[in-house]
Amino acid sequence: MKSPRTPKKSSYVIGVDFGTLSARAVLVNVANGEVCASAVEAYPHGVMEDQLGVDGKALPPQTALQDPSDYLYALKKTIRKVIRQSKVLSNDVVGLGTDFTCSTVLPTDGAGEPLCTKEEFRREPHAYVKLWKHHASQPEADAINALAAQRKEDFIGAYGGRYSSEWLFAKVLETVRKAPRVHQVAARWIEAGDWIVWQLTGCENRGVSASGFKAMRVVDRTGTNHADYPSSEFFAALHPALADVVESHLTAPHLAPGKCAGHLTPPFAKCLGLPAGLPVAVGNIDAHAAIPACGVGEPGRMVMIMGTSSCHLLLAKQGRRIPGVCGVVREGVMPGLWAYEAGQAGVGDMLSWFVENSLPAEVFTAARRHTSGVHGVLSDRAAQLKVGQSGLLALDWWNGNRSVLMDADLSGLLVGLTIQTKPHEIYRALVEGMAFGTRKIIEAFTSQKIAVREVVACGGLASKNPFILQVYADVIGRPIYLAAATEASALGAAIFGAVSAGIYPNFKSAIQTMTQPPIKVFTPDPQRHRQYELLYKEYRRLHDFFGATTDSTMKRLRAMQRAAI
Amino acid sequence: MKSPRTPKKSSYVIGVDFGTLSARAVLVNVANGEVCASAVEAYPHGVMEDQLGVDGKALPPQTALQDPSDYLYALKKTIRKVIRQSKVLSNDVVGLGTDFTCSTVLPTDGAGEPLCTKEEFRREPHAYVKLWKHHASQPEADAINALAAQRKEDFIGAYGGRYSSEWLFAKVLETVRKAPRVHQVAARWIEAGDWIVWQLTGCENRGVSASGFKAMRVVDRTGTNHADYPSSEFFAALHPALADVVESHLTAPHLAPGKCAGHLTPPFAKCLGLPAGLPVAVGNIDAHAAIPACGVGEPGRMVMIMGTSSCHLLLAKQGRRIPGVCGVVREGVMPGLWAYEAGQAGVGDMLSWFVENSLPAEVFTAARRHTSGVHGVLSDRAAQLKVGQSGLLALDWWNGNRSVLMDADLSGLLVGLTIQTKPHEIYRALVEGMAFGTRKIIEAFTSQKIAVREVVACGGLASKNPFILQVYADVIGRPIYLAAATEASALGAAIFGAVSAGIYPNFKSAIQTMTQPPIKVFTPDPQRHRQYELLYKEYRRLHDFFGATTDSTMKRLRAMQRAAI
Repeated sequence: MKSPRTPKKSSYVIGVDFGTLSARAVLVNVANGEVCASAVEAYPHGVMEDQLGVDGKALPPQTALQDPSDYLYALKKTIRKVIRQSKVLSNDVVGLGTDFTCSTVLPTDGAGEPLCTKEEFRREPHAYVKLWKHHASQPEADAINALAAQRKEDFIGAYGGRYSSEWLFAKVLETVRKAPRVHQVAARWIEAGDWIVWQLTGCENRGVSASGFKAMRVVDRTGTNHADYPSSEFFAALHPALADVVESHLTAPHLAPGKCAGHLTPPFAKCLGLPAGLPVAVGNIDAHAAIPACGVGEPGRMVMIMGTSSCHLLLAKQGRRIPGVCGVVREGVMPGLWAYEAGQAGVGDMLSWFVENSLPAEVFTAARRHTSGVHGVLSDRAAQLKVGQSGLLALDWWNGNRSVLMDADLSGLLVGLTIQTKPHEIYRALVEGMAFGTRKIIEAFTSQKIAVREVVACGGLASKNPFILQVYADVIGRPIYLAAATEASALGAAIFGAVSAGIYPNFKSAIQTMTQPPIKVFTPDPQRHRQYELLYKEYRRLHDFFGATTDSTMKRLRAMQRAAI
Repeated sequence: MKSPRTPKKSSYVIGVDFGTLSARAVLVNVANGEVCASAVEAYPHGVMEDQLGVDGKALPPQTALQDPSDYLYALKKTIRKVIRQSKVLSNDVVGLGTDFTCSTVLPTDGAGEPLCTKEEFRREPHAYVKLWKHHASQPEADAINALAAQRKEDFIGAYGGRYSSEWLFAKVLETVRKAPRVHQVAARWIEAGDWIVWQLTGCENRGVSASGFKAMRVVDRTGTNHADYPSSEFFAALHPALADVVESHLTAPHLAPGKCAGHLTPPFAKCLGLPAGLPVAVGNIDAHAAIPACGVGEPGRMVMIMGTSSCHLLLAKQGRRIPGVCGVVREGVMPGLWAYEAGQAGVGDMLSWFVENSLPAEVFTAARRHTSGVHGVLSDRAAQLKVGQSGLLALDWWNGNRSVLMDADLSGLLVGLTIQTKPHEIYRALVEGMAFGTRKIIEAFTSQKIAVREVVACGGLASKNPFILQVYADVIGRPIYLAAATEASALGAAIFGAVSAGIYPNFKSAIQTMTQPPIKVFTPDPQRHRQYELLYKEYRRLHDFFGATTDSTMKRLRAMQRAAI
């Protein structure tokens, strides 16, 4: 056990949040959690969806690749910037934590060198990083699910019954099938979040979080209390080339979040302008890093990170398998607790689609006089409506359904449209649909006796739009607290950095010292909550009718669409 | 029997089409059907939906009123204009026919004076004309349907099993319930189409068409071959004040379309600048007037009038009761044939809603360079899509469903939305939904062995948008002919005027002489027709799921909306 060091007034930790389009670093005072400096740097190659950066090679649909050199570039830029901005002495930096989008996966050689940097593979898309939202691996996810069902594999229950195309093994299998040479040459398959820590420390470690939530490494139900990957028989049945994939490509120490993964190597110390030997926390998932930053370290308070999509995270003493909940991992976020993750695939994304594709010019004109722009105009108007007044109802599946149906082929629905329907009425229906989706998730937990007493919200959508949070509170009938942290994942990465550096003895004290109380509470209105019961009943009915796996119009429409293209 | 007069080269008839927002008069050469002049005049009060013109009194939702003085104003303006424009001598005008929206109903005194013109009732909304699209009488339509079902009334079978909120007795009952004094004082309840002819001729007559299609006056199935209204027992059970409503408020000579209702009175002759004693045809329904103008006078060729809503008319030798078809009337359009009417409540309306409420500025910018404006841009883009490519499906019920579900409380639905969905894809889905609705109607006929071999389309939407007609042809698998007449109802009113004035011995010869052949045919593409089978299957599934009378989300949403307002 580490002996806690007393934080000095002049001690700082750095947290780096690797997002989809950019990395953000914050430099945080460990004594009070104050963010002294913050810097963002976009990835030069961004997300490669249409063509490969190196030669402009066209990429197939649903591809989303990244260049790993971008991560190192953004890391250096942002860290140097926060040091410069804050004027903190680099020797006063006592810890470094990171978080990363997940599952974002790349193949490397035995030394951690990405395959896409080698001459042989520079023009091979499958040698690059496959970003979380790379969905071209859906057929491979289908194959994994079919095989798991056929073999009655225990692990699949920990993923709510369905393995996602976004996750590690779907992407690995896609590479094995489409670019077998990449897998032959690769020595390691690794999450980018673990890879960056390997680069910084020179030591290969794996986070139990990413491997538990995305890579089938679960505690089985036989009571051994031991987390492991599926058997080599399973992998051999999936593809002969994968029979030994765990031993050959994944085996490494697996560390829980908040553990120290190693210390900054001298070359990296020089490159970043930080002290060599600085403790570096084990890799973490971006959404999960937000939990302590929202002041949450105990069961019963669900953290909802609301951005383009929405992530619902919950800690509990019990480890149960919950249909429709994407993952449950022992100590997946903090020691002594099980972590659960559920999600909604399209939230801010859906509202942006609406604004970009379905709004008359009049609203844009009105938005010129509104401090919160188009969303402000629509929210203000929508807030005037009574529950049920628009006659509209939406299924919020513009990006498919993550929880509790876990089906990327589902789609959005609007019912109740008339020639009197106004844009702000549709906007409200979309927000209500999102709130109903969250209520479905909460009920998945509570039906299994996992408590959700209140919700703490963070993320761009939550901080920008009080109307949305009030609708959520009214629909779910629980108070929603708006977290103080505006860059919650980055601050969270710093908190993990502080804990892993031994600055605090545990998360509880780190959270107490380094986070601020919520800045606002949204209390459910009892009357509106009662009225929403009726509307929610209809939502559930349509949810079950369209979300049914055996007879779904949505899935047949998607199949027709695929056939037409 | 009249002896036909040989038309002179210099003989003309005038047709006046009273639409929703304006009246249109055409002056037509009886020798060849040439439209020599055409004039439109908007109703000064338009449609009063939000407030009453006289005092700005707020009106309840789903209200749609008109001021009857507007009809006389527009009549005078347009007739004087066509005489002036054409330079025809008024004495060369040999007949006058009219058609009217229907069921558009008003209460009058015994002399035909509208109650709303009297001081006592000028501020009473229920004393005004209730326009066809006044839907606030839905609870009354529900009461009529419940009672008819309970009493096993025979008449309801002639309306496909459901009486509509748009029709006469729903509006009368609403007035009896909400403004009993209006009914107490009123001597007559009358269709505006019959009222205008009463004004012109000084004689009160009723068209068998409007009374048959909208006012329960049907040929019963006992074989008496005699058309009559329901019993006074039925009306007494509906409301005590209505026990004698037929005898007291409706009884008058009922004349078939094409009959002469009387002759122009000297005061009106002076007012309109036409010869006194001019024969005036009995009142007619606007959509029905279009049938001869489209060159149709025989069974098997369905006429589809496509405007804000869509009306489907079919002639047949057999008089059958067809579930979901709004009406069947013996000699309802022409002698010797039964007339059937079905309809879709929102067609052009729905597309206009989409353009006005749900389009980004980019499309309007592109429309500046397109001769057919926004609809042209959307149609061109939508035409590039393959069947099924958008993944979208719509239920076309933005104005409720007329046929075959006959339920104004149903609403529009869009499914298959994703963040990749583009406006023109939605536009195509709306058009496809309309076409599927028409296919449903055709199948209602053919399932009862009433033939529909081909479709003749007319109306603004049909003439303006070839893309729409091609989708229809592909979906229904039958050729669609675009009628030559651009103002089909007004031309049809003139043809009815010519027949009622005895210019032609029958409709066949009038149609032969006064109409042009179709200007274009849209032939179904066999491959697209096959592909639409799949999509139509899904349409039918959603149609039945949402249109079910016993367990409909749409109806519950509507009920919640009413409760909220």
